[in-house]
Amino acid sequence: MTSLFLRALNGETTARPPVWFMRQAGRYLPEYRELRAKAPNFVAFCLNPEMAAEVTLQPMRRFAFDAAIVFADILLICQALGQNVAFEAGEGPRLGPLPAVSAMRDRIEGVARALSPVGETLSRVRTALEPERALIGFCGAPWTVACYMLDGEGREERPAARRFAYEQPEMVDALLGVLVEASAQYLAMQAKAGADALQLFESWAEGLPDALFERLVTGPQTRLIARLRELGVTVPVIGFPRGAGASYAAYAERVPTQGIGLDTSVPLELGRRLQAQRTIQGALDPLLLRAGGPELDRRVEAMSQAWGAGPWIFNLGHGILPDTPIAHVEATLRRITGA
Amino acid sequence: MTSLFLRALNGETTARPPVWFMRQAGRYLPEYRELRAKAPNFVAFCLNPEMAAEVTLQPMRRFAFDAAIVFADILLICQALGQNVAFEAGEGPRLGPLPAVSAMRDRIEGVARALSPVGETLSRVRTALEPERALIGFCGAPWTVACYMLDGEGREERPAARRFAYEQPEMVDALLGVLVEASAQYLAMQAKAGADALQLFESWAEGLPDALFERLVTGPQTRLIARLRELGVTVPVIGFPRGAGASYAAYAERVPTQGIGLDTSVPLELGRRLQAQRTIQGALDPLLLRAGGPELDRRVEAMSQAWGAGPWIFNLGHGILPDTPIAHVEATLRRITGA
Repeated sequence: MTSLFLRALNGETTARPPVWFMRQAGRYLPEYRELRAKAPNFVAFCLNPEMAAEVTLQPMRRFAFDAAIVFADILLICQALGQNVAFEAGEGPRLGPLPAVSAMRDRIEGVARALSPVGETLSRVRTALEPERALIGFCGAPWTVACYMLDGEGREERPAARRFAYEQPEMVDALLGVLVEASAQYLAMQAKAGADALQLFESWAEGLPDALFERLVTGPQTRLIARLRELGVTVPVIGFPRGAGASYAAYAERVPTQGIGLDTSVPLELGRRLQAQRTIQGALDPLLLRAGGPELDRRVEAMSQAWGAGPWIFNLGHGILPDTPIAHVEATLRRITGA
Repeated sequence: MTSLFLRALNGETTARPPVWFMRQAGRYLPEYRELRAKAPNFVAFCLNPEMAAEVTLQPMRRFAFDAAIVFADILLICQALGQNVAFEAGEGPRLGPLPAVSAMRDRIEGVARALSPVGETLSRVRTALEPERALIGFCGAPWTVACYMLDGEGREERPAARRFAYEQPEMVDALLGVLVEASAQYLAMQAKAGADALQLFESWAEGLPDALFERLVTGPQTRLIARLRELGVTVPVIGFPRGAGASYAAYAERVPTQGIGLDTSVPLELGRRLQAQRTIQGALDPLLLRAGGPELDRRVEAMSQAWGAGPWIFNLGHGILPDTPIAHVEATLRRITGA
């Protein structure tokens, strides 16, 4: 029997929406914090299949989520392409010098092997997870990963990446080309290892004029998916163009994903229109999940009213916040799943 | 004869779009940096009518801009309401402790007087400026100013403001109420002092679920404009809901401004649709103005093709960057004005 999650992702309107939360394996869980404390190096933690599988499964034991998402990080691929990545405690990631594009190109065929521990994590989780619960693999979308690689850190403004997009277009386009191919190889490996679906995280779709949105976001993602299909991968794909704003509809028209992730700012009415083209996924505000109370209940009800009649996967519009009370997660899951 | 800027803002399709740039009085100009160096305190600089008028006029002498915008800062109103504001060199603003709402309410009627130097600046500039060039007054929109007041600084994430919007709604709504009334008084004073048009800067419309967008952005702005009209102010208003994304159309439907400022991410096609309701203003990417070259020319041409047949004020989608070459400003103005 196909899982509720995959049925919804394949376009079916299910009796209730399947549900999972971005960053559901994370710091809001005491059992996560406990395990994490034993592994001070975050990259090593992600690449330890035993620990990563355990962390992936933690929220699945506690909550009635319909899908697990492999515990990993969108920047692991930078490391595999030869750019060092370090996560300092209490800070964002810091990346080392950007290798030459030609050097990165030479490493593409080794990416799946370098990231094989993520495959091992997926295999372990798929074996441990009940068949009616789906397992999601993922990677960062090319432009978002390129922003980190070019700026060397996760700055909201991305001054270097956005500058280079205009001032060194050939270099940026070549880097995106490397990331398209490397990400396709990486995702194909994840699908082979047991991922039932794949998500592309485009965390930084925002602020781009339409011509750049096409060049940096929809173009590379479309090529990535085409390449993935050429590699024989058939599992459904969810694209999450966070911050796409007024370009959400254009994204849905151009990028051939099965699902589209909605961020917190997508109006209910736009979500409803997008359901005509795609399964939508989202879009509860993590700040509201943390706040709880009657306004949370009202919003979940409003989402159900607006989106319940079309294919919909219930999720947040961004990752769950570390100080979210577990009771709010439980209450929201009860509202959605009735369990 | 009414200025080209005001004709466009009143809905007329002009032979060429009038043009001005956000932050056109600013650090990219050597004469600005020279004067600024003489006044280390930024708030005092803004409240010095002689200096502020001079800075407002500097770009008008150099370039063929159709409108000047008074040199001031959206946070001056916080100071007038009793919250200290300091600008440290090389950093963003730092605000002191938030006063009680009741204390701020008591200060509303003194706001126009406290900010009368801004009125004096406007009078001086209006006198010095040729009649065919318009003068714009402005303030921060209530939610954006509230974000600074609640977070105490200009953080992109605005963790306190966004948290309080859910967790202390009465306090946030009361603060917005104070800002609506104080801003209306402030703008009325500016109109009386010589402003030909007024702009509301909503720098942080982004990331809000539709219900919050209505409560925090369109609701307070609509009440502010209604109050402004009650106070007898008749000059046109431009609303700039930066980051409104998929809610741009809802903003245009709800907030009765004459002009709507478009940020860099508004697709050309959406801008064209918005022209049916409003004069649009925008939306060249400041990064592209800085970069220059044939891509800049192509974009200006694409904007002209898309928007030239409707009411349009040429502008950037955000403030001009400090390291923008003056030659790029000149070349762009030549393209638009033919002068």
